[in-house]
Amino acid sequence: MDEFEIEWVADVDLDAPVLVEGLPGVGHVGKLAAEHLLEELESELLARVYSQHFPPQVSVEDGHAELANAEFHAVTPDEGQDVLVLSGDHQAQDNVGHYGLTDAFLDVAEEVGVETVYALGGVPTGELIEEYDVLGAATVESLTDELEDVGVEFRDNEPAGGIVGVSGLLLGLSERRDVPAACLMGETSGYLVDPKSAQAVLEILQDLIGFDVDYASLEERAEEMEEVVRKIQEMEQGPATPSDEDLRYIG
Amino acid sequence: MDEFEIEWVADVDLDAPVLVEGLPGVGHVGKLAAEHLLEELESELLARVYSQHFPPQVSVEDGHAELANAEFHAVTPDEGQDVLVLSGDHQAQDNVGHYGLTDAFLDVAEEVGVETVYALGGVPTGELIEEYDVLGAATVESLTDELEDVGVEFRDNEPAGGIVGVSGLLLGLSERRDVPAACLMGETSGYLVDPKSAQAVLEILQDLIGFDVDYASLEERAEEMEEVVRKIQEMEQGPATPSDEDLRYIG
Amino acid sequence: MDEFEIEWVADVDLDAPVLVEGLPGVGHVGKLAAEHLLEELESELLARVYSQHFPPQVSVEDGHAELANAEFHAVTPDEGQDVLVLSGDHQAQDNVGHYGLTDAFLDVAEEVGVETVYALGGVPTGELIEEYDVLGAATVESLTDELEDVGVEFRDNEPAGGIVGVSGLLLGLSERRDVPAACLMGETSGYLVDPKSAQAVLEILQDLIGFDVDYASLEERAEEMEEVVRKIQEMEQGPATPSDEDLRYIG
Amino acid sequence: MDEFEIEWVADVDLDAPVLVEGLPGVGHVGKLAAEHLLEELESELLARVYSQHFPPQVSVEDGHAELANAEFHAVTPDEGQDVLVLSGDHQAQDNVGHYGLTDAFLDVAEEVGVETVYALGGVPTGELIEEYDVLGAATVESLTDELEDVGVEFRDNEPAGGIVGVSGLLLGLSERRDVPAACLMGETSGYLVDPKSAQAVLEILQDLIGFDVDYASLEERAEEMEEVVRKIQEMEQGPATPSDEDLRYIG
Repeated sequence: MDEFEIEWVADVDLDAPVLVEGLPGVGHVGKLAAEHLLEELESELLARVYSQHFPPQVSVEDGHAELANAEFHAVTPDEGQDVLVLSGDHQAQDNVGHYGLTDAFLDVAEEVGVETVYALGGVPTGELIEEYDVLGAATVESLTDELEDVGVEFRDNEPAGGIVGVSGLLLGLSERRDVPAACLMGETSGYLVDPKSAQAVLEILQDLIGFDVDYASLEERAEEMEEVVRKIQEMEQGPATPSDEDLRYIG
Repeated sequence: MDEFEIEWVADVDLDAPVLVEGLPGVGHVGKLAAEHLLEELESELLARVYSQHFPPQVSVEDGHAELANAEFHAVTPDEGQDVLVLSGDHQAQDNVGHYGLTDAFLDVAEEVGVETVYALGGVPTGELIEEYDVLGAATVESLTDELEDVGVEFRDNEPAGGIVGVSGLLLGLSERRDVPAACLMGETSGYLVDPKSAQAVLEILQDLIGFDVDYASLEERAEEMEEVVRKIQEMEQGPATPSDEDLRYIG
Repeated sequence: MDEFEIEWVADVDLDAPVLVEGLPGVGHVGKLAAEHLLEELESELLARVYSQHFPPQVSVEDGHAELANAEFHAVTPDEGQDVLVLSGDHQAQDNVGHYGLTDAFLDVAEEVGVETVYALGGVPTGELIEEYDVLGAATVESLTDELEDVGVEFRDNEPAGGIVGVSGLLLGLSERRDVPAACLMGETSGYLVDPKSAQAVLEILQDLIGFDVDYASLEERAEEMEEVVRKIQEMEQGPATPSDEDLRYIG
Repeated sequence: MDEFEIEWVADVDLDAPVLVEGLPGVGHVGKLAAEHLLEELESELLARVYSQHFPPQVSVEDGHAELANAEFHAVTPDEGQDVLVLSGDHQAQDNVGHYGLTDAFLDVAEEVGVETVYALGGVPTGELIEEYDVLGAATVESLTDELEDVGVEFRDNEPAGGIVGVSGLLLGLSERRDVPAACLMGETSGYLVDPKSAQAVLEILQDLIGFDVDYASLEERAEEMEEVVRKIQEMEQGPATPSDEDLRYIG
């Protein structure tokens, strides 16, 4: 296997699509958002990317083993722009790998004709929150203006430390390819998987690219998470024993 | 020395062999199992693999130094399929190295004509156990069915986190070469070398590929390990002072 | 993107310039010093260097995202030598990257005709200090003599452990290119950003290459830092809650 | 600068020389031993090796900066075999670098016509000791026999964990080049620089290759170290405040 391998699975024509990235990160916000799109809209697996920079592992589901990879799905909704959704369970495991892997992702996007890139993620507040603002960053002013128009917040010194990982590199490397790119970051505590933050981000994205989805399943997960938080707060004295489901994010 | 070096030691013809991998991992289950096969059956050293991704060290035995390597032995038992056994004391030390090294292993397997790959390992339960189930994963359904037929367990969400390291990559990279591959994982505490788990795995493998071995030496080692556990439990108050033999696994 | 990318932004002729490096390090002394030069003197952005060895991130300012990079500015002051200033927010993140990145920096310097290299940094004393000496090291005796003449200190066994990172490598790799190079290191506690140390280093550099700048803004920052130190000393009992501005250096 | 650079400094003909390696390791035993040979016998600097796998730093002495490197000196004593001494302050900083760097060292040795390799080091006992045995390992039996004849000890399971780093790799990679190689390891606590252990190793090496040196300076250093140990034992209650000289080994 080469350092980066793109495996084309289907041949689908997308019309001036946008790339929407949702790989694991803070609060799994981007991951939840991307996966929600794939659940709610019809999609077709377009390509997989394998890499020596992904963790050296296979995932196992129903006894079937699958090598670590990231997936591109084509989504052609009735309303709104065509979307190329990038999802998966891993980011690159080393510095040079991050750059190379993001370039591989953008090679797929370029092949498919992507014209705008949206990276989705979370920005940690360090505490549980009630209101879910969505912060933004972009590579060109036209896109910053668009984001502001739909309610994205731009604050001095936020995000502190910039944007790290694939979401940040998608912006930086898209700019080198003259492809406009923006990052939408839902505020989140940073301690838990955050379906509310994912919903806040999707509601903004919806205003930007026009799809229409139901949010019931994300709202359900949000209630489950709130239940988990309540249980953890109650168990303050003895060792917390969350269920397997509660533990799905931690580690 | 190149990044990966395959040193062919003998020229042996194997007939439609299977690859059985037992490199160090959880509980040293795979390692113990592979070494037991080599002790109980006649084998011939076929090849060694050296790599810049192995730890930078030599092992010393009777004053003789040997560079870190993995070994392939040819086993042609009276009963059952021919076996190419992969054993050793190390896995790759870095991410990219894991992928490259596993590809080097599969190059040897391909050269020898291997038709099915079995990776052996342990899955940690986090506690000492009485019953030793063997969990499984495979790359093709035919193999999953075979495994189930001989008593391998397939459970939802297990192994959590998938299969990491050479055992996992042997599955993922074999699939890319269209070679059916399966992983047999003996339950084990994860705290100690586990000869009982190795035996459980070998008993399953025996049903799959037909060899016939005696388990007396593994049973002996199991009794020694139980003695170690008893001593450690007795020494709970003061600092435990296990013997060198007890310490052979830890670190 | 390649492993190292030099992006030339402008075409400026410098006359026998010196390179002045101020990337982040101990006490951010070099960084503050280089940035002060760019604030006080007229400068023009000459080139940017990107690398797969920089952290995988973008910085965000006013909603605009910029890929991690180092910048070269051309400074042609009325008094003193022309200066090529190297500044930025990151050093290489891995060993081999450090060497390669410094070579890329020296390629830019060579292209621009740099004849002497000055690396600026801090040397940690481990405690808050009152007097700010500047220690030195150079690759050729003529430069060591020059440094001594303007008050740079050379002490036995200092800096202990040599000079690590880009400042050290600029000396070592400049010597391989027969370009004289020196490092000026301002004493600093090592705990805080240190504008006083930066000023001490600039005052020495001024004597070496002849520019003339005002130090008011650095003196202001020094007073702010002393205020921060006073607050931290007062808050010794409860958890210190420094403001965002206080925290700008830590992490 | 390339990944590995060999800089030939002088052109010296050595007659069937042996390579003696003394890079930093446990107790700095090998380093002290090699440096003692260079102090006591006439030597000429033959070559330097630079590498992107050495730490990214320069050492500073009398204000002069020198890029991290390893040195080869030619020693042609009146009595005994010609010696190529490998000394320095660093080992490779990463796994792949260790292998590549040792190959570069052996390329120099091959160019010079080295016929036998001696790697010098320490084996940690974990406690302060009175008697200083020297343990051994070699790649060929003839050399193991020679070592035993001059009093080197070969014990079951020692060194536990084999020999790690350049000393181990010199053995492993010399064997691949059909050059006999041995490692002499002086017992040492592992907590301190150990001149007594270095002397024990040199006394064995002397019997093997025939040089004749005075050990007074090593004995002096041994007395200084014993003084340090006594001071540390006295200071058990308060924070130990060893002098700079005491700290020369730690870190």
